[in-house]
Amino acid sequence: MKKITPFALAVTALAIATSASAQFAKPDDAVRYRKSALFVMQQNFSRVAAMASGKAPFDAKSAAESAATAEFAGRLPWSAFGEGTDKGDTRAKPEIWKEHAKFQEYADKMQAEMSKLALAAKSGNLDAIKTAVTATGGTCKTCHDAYRKE
Amino acid sequence: MKKITPFALAVTALAIATSASAQFAKPDDAVRYRKSALFVMQQNFSRVAAMASGKAPFDAKSAAESAATAEFAGRLPWSAFGEGTDKGDTRAKPEIWKEHAKFQEYADKMQAEMSKLALAAKSGNLDAIKTAVTATGGTCKTCHDAYRKE
Repeated sequence: MKKITPFALAVTALAIATSASAQFAKPDDAVRYRKSALFVMQQNFSRVAAMASGKAPFDAKSAAESAATAEFAGRLPWSAFGEGTDKGDTRAKPEIWKEHAKFQEYADKMQAEMSKLALAAKSGNLDAIKTAVTATGGTCKTCHDAYRKE
Repeated sequence: MKKITPFALAVTALAIATSASAQFAKPDDAVRYRKSALFVMQQNFSRVAAMASGKAPFDAKSAAESAATAEFAGRLPWSAFGEGTDKGDTRAKPEIWKEHAKFQEYADKMQAEMSKLALAAKSGNLDAIKTAVTATGGTCKTCHDAYRKE
């Protein structure tokens, strides 16, 4: 059995970080990318949430479309939190890069709940949508409380 | 056969415009939404274009993912060009709201070419990807030349 040396770990970590940020020409592009994806997600999630709370009339087709878009957009931001993207026009807390596993766990949890919401919206069952909106909104808040400034 | 009166046309146009902008709480949200979606699209398209031109090594899986994301994001901006969203932090030319049918035709053309690119990338054929990148890029330029400031 091979021992994992600190050097091997460092090389692996570097490879992962490089792979994540290599997609972007500069760190500012990564910041803009994740904010863009999160804004698209939030806008679509909000449309479904407004229907769930009765603030907007329920339209099954529109809810299903918005939830599917929110689910898709919710997969995109995470590769844009690579090393060196903690600066610039961002409210991301430095803890994200110190506790990356925990941050990724929160991101995964949100995506799992958002997928349930997309399924609920596809089914057209408003009660199921309400439950899923609450669960998904909870995962947004947990992550923002821990990792978003202000 | 019923005559279409100018009044009926005006009512229809208003209904379309209201439907499009009703999704957004305020015009600035619509502007931010379409810019966000276009940025996500552009970043993903650029990754595929870099592979097509040889500036980045060709990775079939990554190209297929990026092209699929660009295709999805490319469907989103257009509902965010409703009436009253011609102001604020935008480079959109006022012509968009004067020649909306032509603008929409350009948007549709881009989406059609982007779908072909997504198919080409899914097939993994680099020559087909190159052809589709050129065609898609052409539709971006046509629309920017006509409807984007600067």
